[in-house]
Amino acid sequence: MITTTDPRTAETTETGIEATTTDQVAEITTLATAAFRVISGRSREWRAGLLDAVADGLESRREELVSTADAETGLGFPRLNGELTRSVFQLRLFATAVRDGGFLEATIDHAGDTPMGPGPDVRRLLIPIGPVAVFGSSNFPFAFSVAGGDTASALAAGCPVVLKAHGSHPLTSVRSLDAMATAATAYGAPEGTLGIVFGTEAGATLVADPRIKAVGFTGSLSGGQALMEIVANRPEPIPFYGELSSLNPLIITDGAATARAEEIAQGLFTSFTASAGQLCTKPGVAFVPRGEAGERLIAGLVSRVNDAGGQALLNERIFDSFSAIEQRLISDGHATVEATGTSDGAGFTIAPRLLSIDAVDMTPEVTEEAFGPLLVVARYGDLAELDLGLAQIPQSLTTTIHNEPDEAELVSRLVEQVSPQAGRLVFNGYPTGVRVSWAQHHGGPWPATNSQHTSVGVSAIRRFLRPFAWQDAPEAVLPEELRDGYTGVPRRVDGTLALAG
Amino acid sequence: MITTTDPRTAETTETGIEATTTDQVAEITTLATAAFRVISGRSREWRAGLLDAVADGLESRREELVSTADAETGLGFPRLNGELTRSVFQLRLFATAVRDGGFLEATIDHAGDTPMGPGPDVRRLLIPIGPVAVFGSSNFPFAFSVAGGDTASALAAGCPVVLKAHGSHPLTSVRSLDAMATAATAYGAPEGTLGIVFGTEAGATLVADPRIKAVGFTGSLSGGQALMEIVANRPEPIPFYGELSSLNPLIITDGAATARAEEIAQGLFTSFTASAGQLCTKPGVAFVPRGEAGERLIAGLVSRVNDAGGQALLNERIFDSFSAIEQRLISDGHATVEATGTSDGAGFTIAPRLLSIDAVDMTPEVTEEAFGPLLVVARYGDLAELDLGLAQIPQSLTTTIHNEPDEAELVSRLVEQVSPQAGRLVFNGYPTGVRVSWAQHHGGPWPATNSQHTSVGVSAIRRFLRPFAWQDAPEAVLPEELRDGYTGVPRRVDGTLALAG
Repeated sequence: MITTTDPRTAETTETGIEATTTDQVAEITTLATAAFRVISGRSREWRAGLLDAVADGLESRREELVSTADAETGLGFPRLNGELTRSVFQLRLFATAVRDGGFLEATIDHAGDTPMGPGPDVRRLLIPIGPVAVFGSSNFPFAFSVAGGDTASALAAGCPVVLKAHGSHPLTSVRSLDAMATAATAYGAPEGTLGIVFGTEAGATLVADPRIKAVGFTGSLSGGQALMEIVANRPEPIPFYGELSSLNPLIITDGAATARAEEIAQGLFTSFTASAGQLCTKPGVAFVPRGEAGERLIAGLVSRVNDAGGQALLNERIFDSFSAIEQRLISDGHATVEATGTSDGAGFTIAPRLLSIDAVDMTPEVTEEAFGPLLVVARYGDLAELDLGLAQIPQSLTTTIHNEPDEAELVSRLVEQVSPQAGRLVFNGYPTGVRVSWAQHHGGPWPATNSQHTSVGVSAIRRFLRPFAWQDAPEAVLPEELRDGYTGVPRRVDGTLALAG
Repeated sequence: MITTTDPRTAETTETGIEATTTDQVAEITTLATAAFRVISGRSREWRAGLLDAVADGLESRREELVSTADAETGLGFPRLNGELTRSVFQLRLFATAVRDGGFLEATIDHAGDTPMGPGPDVRRLLIPIGPVAVFGSSNFPFAFSVAGGDTASALAAGCPVVLKAHGSHPLTSVRSLDAMATAATAYGAPEGTLGIVFGTEAGATLVADPRIKAVGFTGSLSGGQALMEIVANRPEPIPFYGELSSLNPLIITDGAATARAEEIAQGLFTSFTASAGQLCTKPGVAFVPRGEAGERLIAGLVSRVNDAGGQALLNERIFDSFSAIEQRLISDGHATVEATGTSDGAGFTIAPRLLSIDAVDMTPEVTEEAFGPLLVVARYGDLAELDLGLAQIPQSLTTTIHNEPDEAELVSRLVEQVSPQAGRLVFNGYPTGVRVSWAQHHGGPWPATNSQHTSVGVSAIRRFLRPFAWQDAPEAVLPEELRDGYTGVPRRVDGTLALAG
């Protein structure tokens, strides 16, 4: 029996949901395969309408979903209402992208002479890859879970989705799925368009299932690596898109500290404690210049952390892991405690922490991702010390630079230095609060992600598509987007890009 | 010492080239890393010019390169001259694509209000991934080797390339590299832009090298799997793009056999014997309808194969493997010999073969890729028999359908059936002779390739790029393609696609 736990009290109750058996997983993926054949034959407009319908389905059950999620995650109504808004917005944005059709990369080369002789007519489109398994994360019960970006992008690509519900919020998962699937069915989607499995074993079975053609995963490095091993042992390897672990260093220049110590202290405090520090883009280390300005900035952080109340972590595993990392850092002398908030110790509640080190003493212990409200300030005396510290930082989703306009040369040097290590560079802001938009990239070099793809933003759809070419095909066989005279999507024809008409 | 063998005589001579040591591999990848930093700072126009310069470098040594390749591969001057033309064309086409800039996927979202509050300015571009290892294939000493598509696409992406020379044509490899590197140096490219290693061990060392950020490979399934295992054991996994094994089934309908038996016999014979059948897109199995028309078609194949002379295979491994597969098919009774060409038995020369089976007797032995001039004809009595045969065919790069215009319903059924198993559908033609163009896709479901990417055509460049986003970046930090007002590339700005100005 699957249970659910209130992180504010650590009280566990039964959900009435049973762990999915191996046979049930096979039934669900078989249905998804049948649904794939049906959906593949539907138009882009139909698919866009499905995304809109699913968005409406979530919106119509907002109150129930948000209160369920609050009880299971302790993240609070404002954050969870915002997150559901984000999920709904994401589905609608992806519907817009499906209608736009640019993501299809429609390309036509008419038959013609080439230096190698006559060339045939070749037409290319990205087509859906097949049923996709999506693993919900603990920290976003909506936006990176059942109703999240992986689901939205797989559906936008034209792929049915089988969700693996996260054990931290099973009721939110099953109710989100119900809201979405009910809306999908009412819209006319085939059974099997959206499915869900519960339990760790069912998740492993799902990834090994030959009917599953791609996996989207947001979670821990160890969890991701376990699934990657299952993928590697499949007779047919499939793409695995993992968003795994990230330290997200933040660099504050002398100029920025001098000009904006107080403002940065406020922003940085908010960023590393938001959602109890359980965001994959949480800044884990901040490089602060030695001297009066830097100390002013640190003092601003110290007073805020000292005043901060306790925050409930999502589950026991995160609570234990956070406590162990914190303990190791402090008792083993890897870092010095600068400030500690207060905590009543109820459930999985912990106190926010501010630690510090010298940048030159950066160790692997300090650079381990601590999922929770903990920030390590790394003091640097000069650029040589900053370089030594930066050299120890693992590759991340993001790197952030705070600077002043008159430090252009320094910024250019820093950008060159940190760009190879990150997927997104943030200037004079904070890496948390990932905008869902066309240009967004949420990914980065290993171990941030294992891929050259993003899990946020419109181009996330690309992960669940594969290229397909038709050579000298009769018109009736071609998707309408590849027929001569069609003007509904941007296309590259004989090498020249043309906008939709 | 690396040796080279003339496949027409099996005579082996020393090349004077030593196998690359582990230390030398590290030196080469270190140089490539340094070159990457330099090239990353150069403009698109510079990079396009580099591709053109490299193309000119190859062209200027055409005679020497083609005669070297002929001695090492036995493929003959017409084919090798055509192949070098193709390599040169490919580099120039990619230069055009680099100038076009569409592959960058430049995307800008200006700061603005969103349903989740104010959104920052986010700008995205695909940037080069880093030094790339490229494994040349045996069967294309130019177009899928040192001067091949993987090299062209990595250079187009802005990545230095370290080649692993194929043991079948070491002199062609070293001379191709010299022609390209000399031209690159004269153009102003940094040392390390193009490097080369020799020997199987050096290849393994190269793939394990932490400075290598992606691998392009065209070759055998077993060779690819060995490299994939090395990749999986790296501390930092990297993308591995393998083009591995493909049977390329060809289906001939009743209508097509009736209308064009003789024409198809000629085309199919040419396709499966071209380059001694050593093409990844060689049709390995042809489904032919039972009856008078089908038998006429088979008779056309039989007479051509009986009249065919011997063909030299590329090397001893391919010769042994081909002989073993052929032997197994015939002696174990998996297939019946329909026709055998003549062969003088010199070197690695073998005789073309035509075998046949009943479609319903399709076995794994028959569907194993036989790299060489061998075609299995599978006779089918009705669609049920065709279905049974097709169900045993492994996923492939291509599937080909020969039909007549009045068979639209049958074609539509076949297309639905075979599309999930292939990357390219060819109508009334042959899968060999892959056009190098914008719309081409050369890839397919496993074991054809392990990826959702192509190794032929302009979009092959995507394999060696990764997305990168800038948030609220000062203009000076942004690549020019992402600055406001720039009109040199197609861009999507605030959701709307705009052509280059």
